[in-house]
Amino acid sequence: MEIIREIQAMKEWVRAARKKGETVCLVPTMGYLHEGHLDLMRMGRPLADHLVISIFVNPTQFGAGEDLDRYPRDLPRDIELSESVGVECIFHPEASEMYPPDYCTYVNVENITSGLCGASRPGHFRGVATVVAKLFNIVEPDIAIFGEKDYQQLAVLKKMVEDLNMNVQILAHPTVRENDGLAMSSRNKYLTPEQRKNALVLFWTLKAARERVKQGERSAAVLKSEAATMIEQVPECTIDYVDIVDPVLLTPLERIEDRAVMALAVKVGTTRLIDNMTLEA
Amino acid sequence: MEIIREIQAMKEWVRAARKKGETVCLVPTMGYLHEGHLDLMRMGRPLADHLVISIFVNPTQFGAGEDLDRYPRDLPRDIELSESVGVECIFHPEASEMYPPDYCTYVNVENITSGLCGASRPGHFRGVATVVAKLFNIVEPDIAIFGEKDYQQLAVLKKMVEDLNMNVQILAHPTVRENDGLAMSSRNKYLTPEQRKNALVLFWTLKAARERVKQGERSAAVLKSEAATMIEQVPECTIDYVDIVDPVLLTPLERIEDRAVMALAVKVGTTRLIDNMTLEA
Repeated sequence: MEIIREIQAMKEWVRAARKKGETVCLVPTMGYLHEGHLDLMRMGRPLADHLVISIFVNPTQFGAGEDLDRYPRDLPRDIELSESVGVECIFHPEASEMYPPDYCTYVNVENITSGLCGASRPGHFRGVATVVAKLFNIVEPDIAIFGEKDYQQLAVLKKMVEDLNMNVQILAHPTVRENDGLAMSSRNKYLTPEQRKNALVLFWTLKAARERVKQGERSAAVLKSEAATMIEQVPECTIDYVDIVDPVLLTPLERIEDRAVMALAVKVGTTRLIDNMTLEA
Repeated sequence: MEIIREIQAMKEWVRAARKKGETVCLVPTMGYLHEGHLDLMRMGRPLADHLVISIFVNPTQFGAGEDLDRYPRDLPRDIELSESVGVECIFHPEASEMYPPDYCTYVNVENITSGLCGASRPGHFRGVATVVAKLFNIVEPDIAIFGEKDYQQLAVLKKMVEDLNMNVQILAHPTVRENDGLAMSSRNKYLTPEQRKNALVLFWTLKAARERVKQGERSAAVLKSEAATMIEQVPECTIDYVDIVDPVLLTPLERIEDRAVMALAVKVGTTRLIDNMTLEA
C-alpha cells in the first residue's frame, strides 16, 4: 500500500501504470471511511488493473460556518480498511498542495447545482466539481465511482464529465445503509444516540413516498407535503428541503410520470443529513 | 490531412497515436489563418510526433453584440495553409457538437480575468477557458501553443493548466507582426485602408513606452498617460484600455521594477484591436 502526498508523485505513479497499458479506477473520498466507501472500493477492485482512492477533506466545498474544522478524520483506520478491500494506493494531499497561494480556477456546473443542496450550500458544488476535476487530471482514472447517497453530487459530476469531454467513466453505487435503514455517512458520527434514532425518519419518509407512488399517487405536491408532515413530527428534526426532481437534470417535477428522485435534507439537532430514493410510477 | 468533425472520432484518432507512445502538439485556432497562426504551427511541428490544430469559432467567448456572426471564415484556404506547414489533422467541430442542448459546465479562472479584456468583455475568458479545457480533454495534447498577442488569454490558460493540474505544457509564441509592425490578427481584415494605417498607433505606442522605460521612466501612470496621448491623436482611434501589469498575475503595477507588460485595447473605427509588449527596467 502506497500513500502519496504530492501531486507530482501521484502523476508519476499513474503514468508508470498507464505506460504499461494498465487501467486505473479511482474512488474519491474525504476519509473517515465506512462500509459505504468500502463498498465503492469493492465494486471498483475488479473493474481496473489498479485501485486508487483519494482521501482529502476538500476545503473549497465547505461554506463559512460549516464543519470543515471538525469533519472527522482517522487516517490509520482508513489505511487499514482500504487495504483490506484491495486498495493499492491512497492519494492524501495537504490542502496547500491542492490549493497553493494565488489558486483561482474553478469549475462551475450551472443549473443542476441551483436547487437541493446547491441552494442550501452556495459554492458547495463549485468546490466539489473543482476538486474532482483536479483529481481526474492527477490520477487520470479510466473509471471513477461515487455513491448515490450524494445524488446531486453524482449528477453534477456526470454532467461535468459529459460537458467537458473528460476521459473517465463515472459509475454510481447504490446508497449503503445501516441495518435499520439509515444511509451511511461520516457525519452520522455527530449524532447522539437519541438523534441517531430520530434520524431514521429520512429513510422511512422516503420508503413511505415510494409506497404511495406504487399505490398510484402522482402529485409531487401531495407527496412532498406528506413527507414534510412525517419529518416535522420527529423531535429535533428540521427540514432543509424535501424535493422531487428529474433524475438527470434535477429540475423540480410536478407529477411523477415515469422515474423521479425524492431528495431530502434534514437537520437532526445541528447535524445536516441527506438521503434520496428513486420513485417509479 | 484529416479533417475531423466529431469529438468521438477525434478522441479515437488521438488514442490510436497515444497507444503507440506517440506525442501530440495542439494549436487551437478560430481559423481564418494568417502567418501568426502558421508560425505557431511551424514551432509545434518538431516538438511532437503529431501536429493537430483546431478550427472552431467558439460562441461562448463572444459577448452579445460582438462579432461572432461576422467573424471571418475560409476553411478551404485554412486547410491549404495548415497542410503547407505540416499539420496532419484539423479538428473542426460544429458548435452544436461542442455545446449540445443542456450544456452547463464552465471553467472560470478568477482574478487574472478581472482586468484588461476581461473587464471590457465579461464572460470572454470563461468561454476561452471552457473551450480550451474541452479541447485538451478531446485532443489530450502533450503540448499546446498559443500566441503572445493574446497575452491575457495565454496567462489565463497557463493558470488554468497549473490550477487544475492538467497534463499539458503550454508554450507561448512571440507576437507575429506585419512588416510595418501591426500585430497579425484575423480581425485586421475588418479595417479600411485608412484604418489600417491608423492601427499602427498600437505598435508605435508600445515601442515608445519600451524606449521610455529604457531611458529610465519607471512610473506606470506617466507611461500610460503618454501612451493615451499618442493614441488619442490618431483619427478614428478610441482607447478601451491602456494598462501596465505584472506579467504573470496581470495585477496593475504602479512602478516598473523589473519586468512588466504594457497591454492596449483600441477601437479603430468599429474594430477592436489588442496588442502588448514587455517592458524591461
